[in-house]
Amino acid sequence: MSFTQELERAAGLVEGRLAELLTREPAGDSGALAAAMRYAVLGGGKRLRPFLLLASARLFGLREDACLDAAAALECVHCYSLVHDDLPAMDDDSLRRGRPTTHIAFGEATAILAGDALLTLAFEILSGERTHPDPAVRIELVGLLAKAGGWQGMAQGQALDLAAEGQSLDLAQVATLQALKTGALFQFACEAGAVLGRADPEARAALVAYATAFGQAFQLADDLLDAEGDAALLGKAVAKDAGRGKATLVGLLGIEAARLRLGELVQAAETALAPFGSTAEKLRETARFVAERRA
Amino acid sequence: MSFTQELERAAGLVEGRLAELLTREPAGDSGALAAAMRYAVLGGGKRLRPFLLLASARLFGLREDACLDAAAALECVHCYSLVHDDLPAMDDDSLRRGRPTTHIAFGEATAILAGDALLTLAFEILSGERTHPDPAVRIELVGLLAKAGGWQGMAQGQALDLAAEGQSLDLAQVATLQALKTGALFQFACEAGAVLGRADPEARAALVAYATAFGQAFQLADDLLDAEGDAALLGKAVAKDAGRGKATLVGLLGIEAARLRLGELVQAAETALAPFGSTAEKLRETARFVAERRA
Repeated sequence: MSFTQELERAAGLVEGRLAELLTREPAGDSGALAAAMRYAVLGGGKRLRPFLLLASARLFGLREDACLDAAAALECVHCYSLVHDDLPAMDDDSLRRGRPTTHIAFGEATAILAGDALLTLAFEILSGERTHPDPAVRIELVGLLAKAGGWQGMAQGQALDLAAEGQSLDLAQVATLQALKTGALFQFACEAGAVLGRADPEARAALVAYATAFGQAFQLADDLLDAEGDAALLGKAVAKDAGRGKATLVGLLGIEAARLRLGELVQAAETALAPFGSTAEKLRETARFVAERRA
Repeated sequence: MSFTQELERAAGLVEGRLAELLTREPAGDSGALAAAMRYAVLGGGKRLRPFLLLASARLFGLREDACLDAAAALECVHCYSLVHDDLPAMDDDSLRRGRPTTHIAFGEATAILAGDALLTLAFEILSGERTHPDPAVRIELVGLLAKAGGWQGMAQGQALDLAAEGQSLDLAQVATLQALKTGALFQFACEAGAVLGRADPEARAALVAYATAFGQAFQLADDLLDAEGDAALLGKAVAKDAGRGKATLVGLLGIEAARLRLGELVQAAETALAPFGSTAEKLRETARFVAERRA
C-alpha cells in the first residue's frame, strides 16, 4: 500500500468514527446545528493530525481502533478552529476544501455555535471509556488537548495572527505564532499517541521533538503553497497571506531559503525518531509527504 | 450572615480563584486575548452556578476550597456562553452587567477567541489535580460539563433560541429550549457537587430534580424581569425578548399565571431536597432568592 493509500485508509476510519459520533439528533432540533457540525467535520480533508496520532500510538503496539476516539476528538478541535478562523470577523474566507465555508453554508450564528459545539464534543469524546479504559489516561489527554487548543496554544496563535496583520514580525515572532497556531495540535497528536501507549519519558520526548519539527515543516510547506500554489488544486484561495500583509517565513526568508529550511526541518523530524529505529518509518514518510505535497 | 452576604462571600472566593487561574501571560502575547478573557470572566456577576455547586457539595461534607476549581470551570463555560451569545451574529447585545459587552470592548474577533479560550480553559481546569485528587472523578466532571454545554445541551439551546425568533413556539417547545439553554448548566452545578462528594445515586437524583425545578424557576423569573424589570437595576436592556418576537413562558402564560407557576417551581425545588432535611436549607434559600430577585 502506498503512503497516500495508507493516509486515505486511515482518513476513512476516522471519518467513519466521526460520522458515528455525530449521528444522534439533539433534543427539539430544527437540525441546523447538527447539520452544520457534520458539514464542518465530515467534509473530507487529509486527517493528518489523526493520522499522526494513530501512527504514534502504533509505535507502542496500539491498534488503530483503540485510538480512534482520541483521533476523532483531535479532529473535532481542528475542524472547530477552521470554522471559527473562517468567520467574517476573523480571516473572512468563503471557500474551504473546495466548498463554501460553514458560515456561508449555514449562516454566521450557526457556524459560531457549530464551532463551539465541536470543541465541546472533543472533550465529551475524550471523557468516554472508548477513548481509553483508564480514567487517568483520559484525563491526561483532556489536559493536553485543552492546553494545546487554548489561550496558551492554538487560540493564542490565532490571536497573534490577527494582531500581526499589517505588522512586520521578525523570524522569532513568526516562529512563536506558528508554533502556537498550528504546532500545538501536531504536538498533541504525537504526544497523545505516547500517552495512550503509556510511553516512557524518553520515547514521549522523542515524539514531541518530532512533532515540533514536523509542525514547522508543515507550516513552511503551507506558506510555500500559498506563495506558489495552484488554487484549483488547493480548493482555497492562494497568495492570501501576502494580500493581507501577513508575515510568513517565506516572506521573510525568500522562497529559495525557505525550501532549504524545509529540507532541514524534515531531516530534524526524521532524526528525532532515531530511538524508534525502523518502526517509525511511517512517521518519517509523513514528514516527507507534507514537505513535498502540492495541494 | 444574610443569604445575600453568603452569596457575595462565595462569589468573592470564586472570583479570586478565577483571577489566579487567569494570571499567566500567554506566549508572545500582545495581551489582547488574555485581557478579553479576564474582562469576560472577572466582571462581577452573582456567580449563582458556582454557588449551587459549592452548596451541593457541602451536603456531602466538602469544604469550599475543595470545590473551587470545579466551580471556576463551570463559571468559565457560563461566561464564554455570554460572550458568544452577545455577538452581533447572535443576540447582538452591547451591554452586560452594566458594561460594554466583550466584543464592544475588544472587537469581534478577539471576543470569539476569548469565548473559545474560556471554554477550553474550563476543561484544562477540570483536568487538574486541584479539581479532585481522583482522576475518575475529574473525568466524570469533564463528561458531564461537555454534555451540559454542548450540542445536546446549552449550545443546542442557543441554536433553538436563534431559530425561534419570529416563530410561535408552544409551551413544550419553550420548556425544551430553556431546559437546554439555561437548565443544563444548573443541572451540572448540582450534579457536580454530588460527583465531587461521591453522593449515592438517590442523593444525586434528588439534586438533579432540584436543579431541574430551579432552572425553570430561574428562567421564569428572568422572563418576568425582562417583561417588568428596570433596566437601570438590571444593567442590561429590558423587554428585548418581546421586541425580538422571542417566545417566553411569560408571553405564553401571561404575567399572572407565570407568577403562580414560579411559586410552584420554587415549591418543587424545595420538595426535591426533602432527603437532605435541614442541611439543604441554603439550596432552598437559593431557589427562593432567584424567584424573588428584582435584578
